[in-house]
Amino acid sequence: MAKVFDAAEVAKHNTPDSCWVILYGKVYNVTDFLSEHPGGSKIILKLAGKDATEEYDPIHPPGILEENLKPEAMLGTVNPDTLPKVQAEPVPSSSDETEGPPPMESLLNMDDIEQVATKNVSKKAWAYYYSASDDKISKHFNTEVYRSILLRPRVFIDCTQCDLDTTLLGHKLGMPIYVSPAAMARLGHPAGEAGIAEACRSFGAMQVISNNASMTPEQIVKDAAPDQVFGWQIYVQIDRKKSEAMLARINKLKQIKFIVLTLDAPVPGKREDDERGNAIGASAPVPSAAKTADSAEDETSRINQSSGGVGKQLFAGTDPSLTWKETLPWLAERTNLPIILKGLQTHEDAYIASLHTPQVKGIILSNHGGRALDTAPPAVHTLMEIRKYCPEVFDRLEVWVDGGIRRGTDVVKALCLGAKAVGIGRPALWGLGAGGVDGVKRTLQILADESKTCMRLLGVETVDKLGPQHINTRLLEQQVYNGPSGLESIRSVFRAKL
Amino acid sequence: MAKVFDAAEVAKHNTPDSCWVILYGKVYNVTDFLSEHPGGSKIILKLAGKDATEEYDPIHPPGILEENLKPEAMLGTVNPDTLPKVQAEPVPSSSDETEGPPPMESLLNMDDIEQVATKNVSKKAWAYYYSASDDKISKHFNTEVYRSILLRPRVFIDCTQCDLDTTLLGHKLGMPIYVSPAAMARLGHPAGEAGIAEACRSFGAMQVISNNASMTPEQIVKDAAPDQVFGWQIYVQIDRKKSEAMLARINKLKQIKFIVLTLDAPVPGKREDDERGNAIGASAPVPSAAKTADSAEDETSRINQSSGGVGKQLFAGTDPSLTWKETLPWLAERTNLPIILKGLQTHEDAYIASLHTPQVKGIILSNHGGRALDTAPPAVHTLMEIRKYCPEVFDRLEVWVDGGIRRGTDVVKALCLGAKAVGIGRPALWGLGAGGVDGVKRTLQILADESKTCMRLLGVETVDKLGPQHINTRLLEQQVYNGPSGLESIRSVFRAKL
Amino acid sequence: MAKVFDAAEVAKHNTPDSCWVILYGKVYNVTDFLSEHPGGSKIILKLAGKDATEEYDPIHPPGILEENLKPEAMLGTVNPDTLPKVQAEPVPSSSDETEGPPPMESLLNMDDIEQVATKNVSKKAWAYYYSASDDKISKHFNTEVYRSILLRPRVFIDCTQCDLDTTLLGHKLGMPIYVSPAAMARLGHPAGEAGIAEACRSFGAMQVISNNASMTPEQIVKDAAPDQVFGWQIYVQIDRKKSEAMLARINKLKQIKFIVLTLDAPVPGKREDDERGNAIGASAPVPSAAKTADSAEDETSRINQSSGGVGKQLFAGTDPSLTWKETLPWLAERTNLPIILKGLQTHEDAYIASLHTPQVKGIILSNHGGRALDTAPPAVHTLMEIRKYCPEVFDRLEVWVDGGIRRGTDVVKALCLGAKAVGIGRPALWGLGAGGVDGVKRTLQILADESKTCMRLLGVETVDKLGPQHINTRLLEQQVYNGPSGLESIRSVFRAKL
Amino acid sequence: MAKVFDAAEVAKHNTPDSCWVILYGKVYNVTDFLSEHPGGSKIILKLAGKDATEEYDPIHPPGILEENLKPEAMLGTVNPDTLPKVQAEPVPSSSDETEGPPPMESLLNMDDIEQVATKNVSKKAWAYYYSASDDKISKHFNTEVYRSILLRPRVFIDCTQCDLDTTLLGHKLGMPIYVSPAAMARLGHPAGEAGIAEACRSFGAMQVISNNASMTPEQIVKDAAPDQVFGWQIYVQIDRKKSEAMLARINKLKQIKFIVLTLDAPVPGKREDDERGNAIGASAPVPSAAKTADSAEDETSRINQSSGGVGKQLFAGTDPSLTWKETLPWLAERTNLPIILKGLQTHEDAYIASLHTPQVKGIILSNHGGRALDTAPPAVHTLMEIRKYCPEVFDRLEVWVDGGIRRGTDVVKALCLGAKAVGIGRPALWGLGAGGVDGVKRTLQILADESKTCMRLLGVETVDKLGPQHINTRLLEQQVYNGPSGLESIRSVFRAKL
Repeated sequence: MAKVFDAAEVAKHNTPDSCWVILYGKVYNVTDFLSEHPGGSKIILKLAGKDATEEYDPIHPPGILEENLKPEAMLGTVNPDTLPKVQAEPVPSSSDETEGPPPMESLLNMDDIEQVATKNVSKKAWAYYYSASDDKISKHFNTEVYRSILLRPRVFIDCTQCDLDTTLLGHKLGMPIYVSPAAMARLGHPAGEAGIAEACRSFGAMQVISNNASMTPEQIVKDAAPDQVFGWQIYVQIDRKKSEAMLARINKLKQIKFIVLTLDAPVPGKREDDERGNAIGASAPVPSAAKTADSAEDETSRINQSSGGVGKQLFAGTDPSLTWKETLPWLAERTNLPIILKGLQTHEDAYIASLHTPQVKGIILSNHGGRALDTAPPAVHTLMEIRKYCPEVFDRLEVWVDGGIRRGTDVVKALCLGAKAVGIGRPALWGLGAGGVDGVKRTLQILADESKTCMRLLGVETVDKLGPQHINTRLLEQQVYNGPSGLESIRSVFRAKL
Repeated sequence: MAKVFDAAEVAKHNTPDSCWVILYGKVYNVTDFLSEHPGGSKIILKLAGKDATEEYDPIHPPGILEENLKPEAMLGTVNPDTLPKVQAEPVPSSSDETEGPPPMESLLNMDDIEQVATKNVSKKAWAYYYSASDDKISKHFNTEVYRSILLRPRVFIDCTQCDLDTTLLGHKLGMPIYVSPAAMARLGHPAGEAGIAEACRSFGAMQVISNNASMTPEQIVKDAAPDQVFGWQIYVQIDRKKSEAMLARINKLKQIKFIVLTLDAPVPGKREDDERGNAIGASAPVPSAAKTADSAEDETSRINQSSGGVGKQLFAGTDPSLTWKETLPWLAERTNLPIILKGLQTHEDAYIASLHTPQVKGIILSNHGGRALDTAPPAVHTLMEIRKYCPEVFDRLEVWVDGGIRRGTDVVKALCLGAKAVGIGRPALWGLGAGGVDGVKRTLQILADESKTCMRLLGVETVDKLGPQHINTRLLEQQVYNGPSGLESIRSVFRAKL
Repeated sequence: MAKVFDAAEVAKHNTPDSCWVILYGKVYNVTDFLSEHPGGSKIILKLAGKDATEEYDPIHPPGILEENLKPEAMLGTVNPDTLPKVQAEPVPSSSDETEGPPPMESLLNMDDIEQVATKNVSKKAWAYYYSASDDKISKHFNTEVYRSILLRPRVFIDCTQCDLDTTLLGHKLGMPIYVSPAAMARLGHPAGEAGIAEACRSFGAMQVISNNASMTPEQIVKDAAPDQVFGWQIYVQIDRKKSEAMLARINKLKQIKFIVLTLDAPVPGKREDDERGNAIGASAPVPSAAKTADSAEDETSRINQSSGGVGKQLFAGTDPSLTWKETLPWLAERTNLPIILKGLQTHEDAYIASLHTPQVKGIILSNHGGRALDTAPPAVHTLMEIRKYCPEVFDRLEVWVDGGIRRGTDVVKALCLGAKAVGIGRPALWGLGAGGVDGVKRTLQILADESKTCMRLLGVETVDKLGPQHINTRLLEQQVYNGPSGLESIRSVFRAKL
Repeated sequence: MAKVFDAAEVAKHNTPDSCWVILYGKVYNVTDFLSEHPGGSKIILKLAGKDATEEYDPIHPPGILEENLKPEAMLGTVNPDTLPKVQAEPVPSSSDETEGPPPMESLLNMDDIEQVATKNVSKKAWAYYYSASDDKISKHFNTEVYRSILLRPRVFIDCTQCDLDTTLLGHKLGMPIYVSPAAMARLGHPAGEAGIAEACRSFGAMQVISNNASMTPEQIVKDAAPDQVFGWQIYVQIDRKKSEAMLARINKLKQIKFIVLTLDAPVPGKREDDERGNAIGASAPVPSAAKTADSAEDETSRINQSSGGVGKQLFAGTDPSLTWKETLPWLAERTNLPIILKGLQTHEDAYIASLHTPQVKGIILSNHGGRALDTAPPAVHTLMEIRKYCPEVFDRLEVWVDGGIRRGTDVVKALCLGAKAVGIGRPALWGLGAGGVDGVKRTLQILADESKTCMRLLGVETVDKLGPQHINTRLLEQQVYNGPSGLESIRSVFRAKL
C-alpha cells in the first residue's frame, strides 16, 4: 500500500536537488526528470513541493506521466486534508504601479521600453527625444512604411544555424544594427553615451558618437573592447577652427573608425514638442529657426520669438552652407578616416555620393528621424528609388539606413532592400532612459532576437543572403517617386569621373 | 350578438391545442391557422391567450385577417375592463450581465462567441488562444483581407437546393470547413479535443488533431462516427524516435486519414500576449525564442530572459532543421497515409510541393494564424500568387487554407479562389470556451448557415461551382506579390521530375 | 435737437407694420426698408423694437445705414438708462433634451433625421430599419463609395434656372428621387405608406409600394394626385396563387404604373441587429435563414435556432426558385404593366435584362440596402461595370439605383454615371419615424435642395445634362471589377435575340 | 585658496551687466561670455545668479567650461549651506487655464491659433468661420491632400541665403502667401480687415479685400504702406448698379491693384455649422439655399425653411447668372485693373481663362475653402490637372491657389506644382480672433518661418527655383481626374483666338 504524505513534508522537496510534486493526489519525485523536461526545468521548479495538478492537467494528454517517469518515482499519495485551500489565481495586474522601474526582462518590445522611459526621464528629456518636426508625419511614416512591406517565408529550410554577423567598412560586427548618433544621452540617464558603448560592447554592435554628445569622445570610448567599432558624427561649425580642433582630437582615437558627416539638417526642423517641453518662457525667448540664418523683419521680432527647445540650442553655430565642392575636400584633408554621408533622401544625391569614392565609403539614408523636414521620405523610399534609378550605387558604397525601426522584422526588411546596416536612435535612448546600460542591452537583445527569429522563419541563415525575393513591396512601389530623375544632368556634370 | 369574454378566460387558451388571441377587441380561435401562418406558429404561440393587437397591427395590412380566417374563428369580443393595463415594452437589455453563459443560440457570429469565451476561460487560456506574433499585423490582416474582396451575386437562379457537401482527399464530407490543428483545447474547456470531435461528427466536418493536443489521439477519435475524418498534425522532434513512436501509434488509428506536416513554425513566433499572460515570473525565466537554437552571448543572459508563454513551452524539442530532401522521405517511410504540407506562404513552395506527388496530396496555405512571422502574407495572398504564377498547382494537389475566417462569406471567397477546404483554429477553440461541445457546434452551424446563405445569394448550388467569376478581387490584386519568381530555378533543379 | 425715446416706447414698434430698431444709440424707423433688406425682413423683425447694435455692427461696414435709409428714418436717440442690461449670449444648447421631437425645419440632413427617428421609434422598428447583413460592410460602403467620387464644378454658367424635373418610363416627375419599396412603414409611424404617398405628392415624386407594406395598395394610393406615379414590388410566393391574386388587384389600380420584381433577396440576409432587436426568445425560436429551404441536420436543431427578426418573418413563403426562363413569362402573362427588375449587381445580369425588352423596361441596381449579401457591390460599382463592359444597356433600358444615398451630391453623382433615377429606402422611413408625413417631406425637401444646389454649383440646369464629365471617378475605377466577363457566353445563348 | 560666496551674494549678479552662475559648486563670472554662448545669451540669463548645474550638466560634455572661460572667470566656491533646497521641477502645465489669451509667441502652429481663437470668439463667429459645406469632406481633403505629397530634400546645398520674396502681377512682395478675401473679419475681432492689413504690412504680404468685408475698402487701405498691395473681390449683384457703384469707388483707391471675380459660389453652399450656430429660430425662418433662385413648391414651404446662417445672408442679392460672354466684358468696361478669376476647379475652365488674356491676368484655383460644393476637388488637384492636360496655362496666366494651408510645407508644395501664390483665409481670421493684429502677424510669421525652413531643407534659395523635382506626388497622381477632357470642344469654339 502506498505511503501517505502530509503536504508539509512534500513542501520541503522544492529544490533542484530534491524535487517532488503532487499530481492527481499522488506524490512524485521528479528530481531526475528535471533535465529531461521538454519545457525546461524552471517550470517544474516553480511548482516544486506543491500540488501541480491544476497547472499540469490541461496541457498534458494522459499517459505522458507514465511514459516519462520510472515506476519508483511515484512515492505515494498525499493526505488531502493537509493540502492548502485552493486560492484564486493570482493574476499579475498589468497596470501594476509599483515603485521603481520594472525588471528589464519584463519589457518585450520597443513600445514597452519607450513607455517605461517616458515615465522615468525628465519632461525635458522626453520632449527632446520624442519630438519630431511639425505634425510628425515623417516620424510616424518611418515606422508605418515597414508595416506595409510583407514578408515571404520559405519552408523546409534548415535554420538551426542563424546569426546576425556582418562586416561594415571591413570591420567584423555582431549584428547589422548600430546606434545612431543621437545627442544628449545623459539627459536620459547618467550613464550617457558611455553606457550605450558598454551595451554595444556586449553585442559587438557599432556606435556612432554624436557631435552633440553629452560626454567627450574620449570618455565614451574609454572602456571599449579592443575590436569595438565607433564612428564620429560631425556637424560642421561656422567657425571651422572648432571643427578642425575636434577632428584633430578624433583622429587620435583608435576606436573611431569613420566620420559621419550629417547633411539632412543644415537648419533645425521645427520640433514643437521640444519647444513646448523646453520653453524658456515668454520673458526670455530665443530666436526661432528661420532667424538663425536670417534676421530681418525687426518690426515683428516680438511675435517671431518662439520659445525654442534643446534641439534648436544644439544647432547654434552649425554651418548651413556646406557643398559637395567645398566641404568634402576640406574634410578629407583633415582626416584619413573613411567618410560616411548621412541624411541622403533622393536617388540623385545617393548617386552623386557614389561618384565621390574612395573618400566617401558609405551613405546613410535618413530623414533625421523625422526631426528635420516633415513629409520627407523614409529611408525605405530612398532605398527603393536607388534600386529603381541607379542600383549601381549599392556596388560602389555601403548603404545604411535609419529611422522608424521598432521590430526585428523592420531590420530584416531594410536588409532585404539592400541596406548593409540599420541604425537606431530613439530606441537606444529610450533603452537608456528605461534602465541605463541594462536598458540599452535589453533594446539590442530584443531587436537581435526578433531579427534572428524573422530570418529563421524566412529560412535564411545569414544576413548577406537576404534579398528582395524575401519581401513583397507591392504597396510601397505605389508610393515611391517616379517623376523625372536628375541623373542625366548629374552625369553630364561628372562625366570626367564616370 | 357576439359573445363577450373575460381576458382571464381567453388566457387559458394558450397552447397549440387551443390557441386564442385578441385582436382589435375581438377574440379569435387561431388553433387551425397555426400551421398555416407564413411567419411560423411560434410567433403566434408566444402571444397565445393574450391581446396581440400591438404586435400584429403595424406589420399586417388590413384585410389579411379576413382573408385567412374562417368567419367562425371569430368567437366574440373581449371585455376591455378585464384586460391588463398596457405595460412598458420590456426591452431586453443587451448589456445584461446575468449569471452563467448565455444560451448558445443567442450567439449570432464569431465575435459573439469569442466575447463569451473571453469571459469564460482562464487568463492563461485566453492569452494562449488570442495571442499572435509581434504587433498582430498578420492576424488582423488575415481577416481584413477577406473584407476587401467583393462578391458578385447573380440573379434569377433557382437556389432552392444548396448544400455544402464536398470531397477532400477522396472522403465525403458535410462541409468544406474543417477544424485546424489548434493545441491545448482542454485549457479552454474540459471537453477538449474530444469535444471538438463530437461537434464535428454532427456536421460531417473534418478535424486535424494537433501534435500538442491536450488529449491523446486515441481519446479524441474514440467516439467518432464510422465515416468521420481526422488528420494528425506532426511537429517533427529533434529526438526523431519520439516522432516515430507517435507515428506508429497514429498509423494504427483507422479514423486518421492523413498526416499534416507543419512547416510554418520551425521556431516559435513572438506571441507577447501569451508571454505576458503566462509569465513564469522574473525569478524563474525560461529561454527566449532565439535561444532555443542558439545560446551564445552569455554575458547578457540575464537581460535576454523573456518570461516565455505556453506557445514557447510547446515548441521545446521541435526540430528546426527540416528539409525537402531529408524530412519528406523520412516521413513517407514511416506512414502510408497521404501527407499534407502546412504553412506554405509563397507560390514557389506551393510549386515545389506539387512536384512531390504522389506522397504529398495537399498543401495548407497558412501563416499559422499570424502566430509565426508577423507581416507574413495571409493565405489569400498565396492563393492569388499561385493563380498568377503557377495555376497548375491546383490540378496536382488539393489546396486548403486557414487563418482569419470569421464569416461564411470568407469561406466562400476562399473557395472561389481555388481552395478546396477552409480551416478554422481559434473559432473552434472560442466555441469550446464559450459552451463546450455545444459551443463548437454553434460555431460550425453559424459558419455553415452563413456559407449557404452566401451561396444562395450568389446563385450557386454546390461548392464546386464557385469560381473567380463570383468575386471582385481588384483591391487584393494591387497588394499581391509581383516581384521576381523563383520558379525558373526551381524548374531547373527539378527538371527530371517535370 | 433729436428726440429722446425711452426703450419701452421703442419696444412697442415690433411688427411689420411699424418696425423700429436702435443702432448705436439712435432710433430708426425701418418699416419701409423691411422689404428691401438683402438678408430678408425676418432678420430685422427678430430684432424689432430692440437695440440691434450688437447684431448689426460686426457684419456691416460703416456707411451702409446712411446709404440705405432716408434721413427722416432716423427718429431720434434712445435714453440709455432705459435700456435693459446686456445679458449673456443665450447659447442654444445642442444637447438640449426637451420634450417632443424638434421642429422638422431644424433637421438639416439625413443624419439629423435618422437621429431623431432613432429616438422616436420602437426598438423593434429601429432594429428592422437600421439592420443590414453580417458586418454591415455593404451598407456602409454604399454611402462611402459616393464620397470617393469627386465633383467637377464648371464656372461662368448661368444657373438661375435649375430644376430636377425628369421623365421615368414616360411619366413626368418632379425629381429623379423616388421612394424605394421599403416594408413595414407603420412600424415607424401610424401614417405608414400612405403618409409617404402624401409626402411624395407634394414633390411629384414616385413611390414603389413594398410587397410587405403594412397597408394595402388601395389604402396607399387612395389620396394620390391624378398624375402621381406608383410602382408595386412583388416577391413571388411559393404559392403562386397568392401572387396571382395580388397581381389581379394591382392591375386594377390606375395609379400603379409598373411592377418591380425583386431579385436580390431570394433568401433573407443575416440582419443581426434585427435578430437581436426582435428576438422572440429562446423559448420560442424560429428557424434560421438557411433552414427555410433546407431542414436536414435535426441533431443540431436546438443550436441552429437563431431568434430571427422581422426581416426573416417577412420572407416566409417567398420563392427562391425564380429564373429568367420561367418567372418572367409567368409575370408578363399576368400583367400588362412594364416590368422593372430590382437587385441586379453585375454587368452580366444587366445585359441579360436588356435582352428581355420590351417586357422589361428598366432595372434597379441594388444590393438591397446592404441587407442581402454582405460585401456585395454598391450600385455605383455596377453602374461602372456596365459603362465598361456593355454601355448599350443604358440605351435599351432605364437604369435606376438605390442604396446609401445621404446627400444631394450622391443623387447627382449617380445621375452623372448614367442612372435615370435614385431610390431612397431608409431615409424615407427615418423621415416617417422622425415626423410622420412632415418628416418624409423634410427628407425629400433636403435631398431636392441639396441636389439643386449641387447642380447649380456644377453649372448644370437640368438632370439630363449631367454626365461623366462632371465627376472624377479615379479612385472608384481602381476598385471596380475587371475580371473575366460572362458576356460572351451570354451572347452565345441569346444569339437569336441579338 | 578660493573665495567662498554666499548664494545670496551670487544672486545679485543676475543681469547682462554682471552675470554670475554657480556650476558644480563653483562661482563663475560669465558676463563676457554671454555674447559668445552658441545657444544664445538668454538661456544663461535665465539662470543668472543661480545654481545652473542641473540645467548645464546633462547637455555639456566635460571640458567645455575650461575651453570657453578664462581662468579668472572662476571667482571661487559657493557655501553649500546657503543654497536653497532643490525644488520639484516646475512643469508648466499645458492644460493651464489661466485668464486671458496666451502670449502669441507661445502659439506654435495653425492648430494652436485656431484653438485659441475658438475660445475667444463668439459662437456666431466661430460657426461662420469654421463651417464648410455638407460633410466638410472638401474642407478636410484640402488639408489632407498636402500631407499625401512627400518632399525630396537635396543635400550639400548652401542655403544660408533663403528668402520668400516674389513678384505677383508685377508687384514685389515679401512672401508668396496672401490673405484671401474672407468676409466678416470684425465678427472675430474689432480690428477687422484693417487689422489684417496692418499685419500684412509688416511682411510685405498681399491682401484681397472681401466684397462682404465688415469695413469699407477705404478704411481697410487707409494706413497701408506705400508699396502695399491689395486686391478687391467682387460678387456681382443682381442689381448691377450696386456693383458698378462699388467698382467706381474701388477704381479710386490706388492701393487696390486688381479685381478678383469670384466664380465658385454662384449660390451658397450648405454650411450646416453656420446654420446651426446662427439659427434665427423656428419662429422666423429664412429661405433655404435653393429658394434664392427658385420659389415654387409653396405647399411645403414650412418644412423647407432652414434657419440659414451668416453665409446665406451674405449671398442675398448675388447674381447666379454670370457667363464668360456677358460678365467679363461688363467688368472690363468698368475697371482698368487686372482681373483675376477665382474659384476655377477644372483644367477646362483654367484653359478658357487663359484664352481671355490680357484682361484676365490670373486665376485662383479654389473650392471656396470647402464652403461651396462638398467633394469638389482641392486646388492641388486642379493644379495637377492643368499640368497634365494644358500646362501652357502656366505661361499665359498667374495661377494662385487657396484652401487647406496649415503649414509652410503646404505652401512650398503648392509652389512646386506651379502656383505663384498661396492664399490663406481661415488662418488669417483665426489669427485675428486669437490675438487681433498680433495674431495675424503671428500667423504670417509662422507660415513664413516654416516655408523658409522647408526651402532651406530642400536646398532651395528662392521660390522661383521650386519645381516638381522637389516633390513626390505619386499618391496624388492616382486620384487626379483622367477622364475625357473638354479641351477639344473648347478649342473649336475659341479657334479664332488661338
